[in-house]
Amino acid sequence: MKNCRHIFFAFAVALIVSAGTAIAGNNGYRGTGDLGLVIERATGGIQVFETTQRTGLFKLSGLGDLSHASAVFSRDGRYAFIFGRDGGLSKIDMLTGRIVKRVLQAGNSIGGAISQDGTLVAVSNYKPGGVRVFDSETLDLVADIPATFGKDGERSKVVGLVDAPGQRFVFSLYNADQIWIADMSNPKAPKITKFKDIGKLPYDGLITGDGRHYIAGLFGEDGMAMIDMWHLDTGVTRIMDGYGRGEKKLPVYKMPHLEGWAKAGDLIFLPAVGRHEVLVVDPRTWKEVGRIPVHGQPIFAVARPDGRQVWVNFAHPLNDTVQVIDVPSLKIIREFKPGKAVLHLEFTPRGEQVWISVRDADRVDVYDTRTFERLSTLPADKPSGIFLTARANKIGL
Amino acid sequence: MKNCRHIFFAFAVALIVSAGTAIAGNNGYRGTGDLGLVIERATGGIQVFETTQRTGLFKLSGLGDLSHASAVFSRDGRYAFIFGRDGGLSKIDMLTGRIVKRVLQAGNSIGGAISQDGTLVAVSNYKPGGVRVFDSETLDLVADIPATFGKDGERSKVVGLVDAPGQRFVFSLYNADQIWIADMSNPKAPKITKFKDIGKLPYDGLITGDGRHYIAGLFGEDGMAMIDMWHLDTGVTRIMDGYGRGEKKLPVYKMPHLEGWAKAGDLIFLPAVGRHEVLVVDPRTWKEVGRIPVHGQPIFAVARPDGRQVWVNFAHPLNDTVQVIDVPSLKIIREFKPGKAVLHLEFTPRGEQVWISVRDADRVDVYDTRTFERLSTLPADKPSGIFLTARANKIGL
Repeated sequence: MKNCRHIFFAFAVALIVSAGTAIAGNNGYRGTGDLGLVIERATGGIQVFETTQRTGLFKLSGLGDLSHASAVFSRDGRYAFIFGRDGGLSKIDMLTGRIVKRVLQAGNSIGGAISQDGTLVAVSNYKPGGVRVFDSETLDLVADIPATFGKDGERSKVVGLVDAPGQRFVFSLYNADQIWIADMSNPKAPKITKFKDIGKLPYDGLITGDGRHYIAGLFGEDGMAMIDMWHLDTGVTRIMDGYGRGEKKLPVYKMPHLEGWAKAGDLIFLPAVGRHEVLVVDPRTWKEVGRIPVHGQPIFAVARPDGRQVWVNFAHPLNDTVQVIDVPSLKIIREFKPGKAVLHLEFTPRGEQVWISVRDADRVDVYDTRTFERLSTLPADKPSGIFLTARANKIGL
Repeated sequence: MKNCRHIFFAFAVALIVSAGTAIAGNNGYRGTGDLGLVIERATGGIQVFETTQRTGLFKLSGLGDLSHASAVFSRDGRYAFIFGRDGGLSKIDMLTGRIVKRVLQAGNSIGGAISQDGTLVAVSNYKPGGVRVFDSETLDLVADIPATFGKDGERSKVVGLVDAPGQRFVFSLYNADQIWIADMSNPKAPKITKFKDIGKLPYDGLITGDGRHYIAGLFGEDGMAMIDMWHLDTGVTRIMDGYGRGEKKLPVYKMPHLEGWAKAGDLIFLPAVGRHEVLVVDPRTWKEVGRIPVHGQPIFAVARPDGRQVWVNFAHPLNDTVQVIDVPSLKIIREFKPGKAVLHLEFTPRGEQVWISVRDADRVDVYDTRTFERLSTLPADKPSGIFLTARANKIGL
C-alpha cells in the first residue's frame, strides 16, 4: 500500500510539472472558457485540452475506474468534478493540473450533477443506492439521500441524476419505479418530493435544456415517464408509448444515452432503442412525427448548438461511423468513418467544431461542422466521454 | 497630445497595480466563467466583477465615450472587447486588468459582434457608415465593408450587427432600407449577400438564440423585417404588422432594444413601442397571441435562462421599476423599485441570479431569482450595460 502511494505521488508530481509547463506559456494566466477534458479510460485518467488552438494541455491519472465516467464543472470554469464508476469523486484544477481532492464516496456509482448555484455536487450511487451531496469547495459530505423504498427499507440503484432550476436535483430509482426531486435550498435538510409507479425500471433520465421537462427511459416496458417541472401537481405523464425495446425484444447492443437527445429547431431527435432509426418527436405533443433510417443502432444524437444539424454515432459492431442529419430536410447529408469505436461527440458551444472520440484508434478528432473538414487530431489513450467547460453554463448537463 | 498620453499612461499603470492586487489573492490563477463587467459611463470605464462571491475585482478607465456601449468576449472568456460610441474598440484582459489594445476605428459607432470561431471582431459604424472587421488577437483591420448604396455611393449608418453560424455577420443599413449578410469564411474577401427594400429605416436588429431568424425593427413604418437564415432564398418576410410606432404616433421616450427580446417557453416576449405593454408572439407563426399590461414603456424584456420568468425594465420617467412576468400564467408576479434609472438586466447563465444596474443610485443590485431577495449590491459609477463572459458561448450576443 505504501509503495503504491509512493508511486502514485511520484507520478502525480511528474504530471504537475508537465501541467505547469503547459500553463507557463501563458504567464500563469489563462481563460477557462475554451477548456475541455476527455476521459482516458484505460489509464483511469483524463486529458485536458483547449479548443482555440486545439492542443492537449496535460494528462492526469489516478482517478480510479473511469468506465462510464462523466464530468461537471464549477461555475467559474476552473474545476472539473469527475464521477468514476467505482464511487470516486475527483476535483481537478484545470489551470494548475492538480487533483485538488478525491473521495471514494460509494462502492459503485453512475454520474453526477452540480447545483444551479454551483455550491453542491451530487452523485448518484448504485451501491449503496442513493444520492450523496457534497460541498463543491471542500468535497465534504453535505447530505445523504438513501433511495429507500418498500417495507423492508431496501435501497434502489439511482440513475438519471440531473440538476434543475431552483437549486434542485432530479433522479430516478431503478429498482423502485420512482422519480424523486430533491430541493436543496437548505442543503443540510433536502426536501424530497417522490413520484411513485412511474413505470418499470427507469434506466436513465434527462432534463430538457430549459430545465422544464424531466424524462426517464424505461427498461421494463415501452414508453417513457415525463414530469413537467413547472406543473408538479399534474404528476407523471406517460409519453412515447412504443418507445423502448419493443414487443419483439430486439437485441439491444447498448441502451442509448438519454443525454443524447437533441432539441433542434422545433423538434426533438432521439435514438431508437434497438432499431436503425432516429425518431423525430414534436415536444409540444410528445408524439412521434417521423423516423430517419440510419447506419446502425444510434447511441448519441447530438444537435449542433444552432439546431441545424444532428450528429449521430452508433452501437457496436457498427460503431466506426458518424452520420449527420440536416434538420430542415430530415435527410442524412454526410457520413464519416472516423475509426473503430466512436464513443462520444461534443460540440463547442457556438457549434463551429465538434470533438469526436475514436477509442480504438486512440484519437480525438476535431471537425469543422460547416465544411466537414477534419481540423486536427489529438492523440488520446482509449478516449471516451468529452466534456467542455461550457457545460458549466448549461442547465441539466 | 503628449501630455494627455502621459497622463493616460500614468493612470493606466495605477490601474494595473490595483488589478494585480485583486488577482494576487488567487495566486495568479482564476477561472473566467463567472466574470462580468459593467459599463460605468460617466468615467468612460468599466468595472469587472465575479458572480460567485459577487465582488468587484477592478476598475479600468480611459475607454472613451461609453454611452450606449456594449461588449463581447473572446472564446476563452479572458478578453472583453468594448465598443464605444466614439468609434473606440478596446480589448481588455479580464485577468490582469490591462487594456491590451485600443483603436479608434471610426468616428461614431454602435455595437459590435464576435465571429462564431472567435477570430474576428466586427464593429458597426454610423460614420463612416459600414462595418469594419478586426483580428481579435491583434485588433488589426482585416476587412472594411462600406455600406454604400444608391447611384452616388452614399454610405448608410449600420445598425443591428450580430454574428450568425457559419462565420457570418448580419446587419441592417438604416438609410438604405437593406439587410446585409457578410460571410467571413475568407476573412480578407467577405462575400456579401444584400437584401433590398426590406422596409423603411431599420433601426436595430436581433438574431434568435439558435442563429436562425434575423429580425430588424423599422422606425419608418409599422412591422418588422425577418430573414430565415436556413432559407435565404425565400428573402425577407414582413412580420408583426402593426408593431412599431403605430398610427397615432405615440410619444416614444426610448426605442426598445431588440436585443431585449425574450424567448421563453414556446413564446417570444417583446417590448411594445410607446405602449405600456409587453407583446407575446408565437414564433411558429410570428403572430401576436397576447399582450400583458405593464408599468411603463418597456425597454428590455429579458427571459430568465430557464424561460420560466421574464423580467422587464422601463423608459423614463417610469424607469425606477422592474416587473417580473410568470410565463405559464402570463401574469406579473413581482414588482420592485430598485431606484431611479434601471438601465439593464443580465442573468447568470443558469439563471439563479440577475444583475440590475441602477444608474442614478450608483449601484448594481443582485437578486436571487427564486426568492426575489436582494443578495448583494455593488457600488458602481453610473452603471449601464452589464455583460457576463458567459455570452462568449452564445450565438448572436
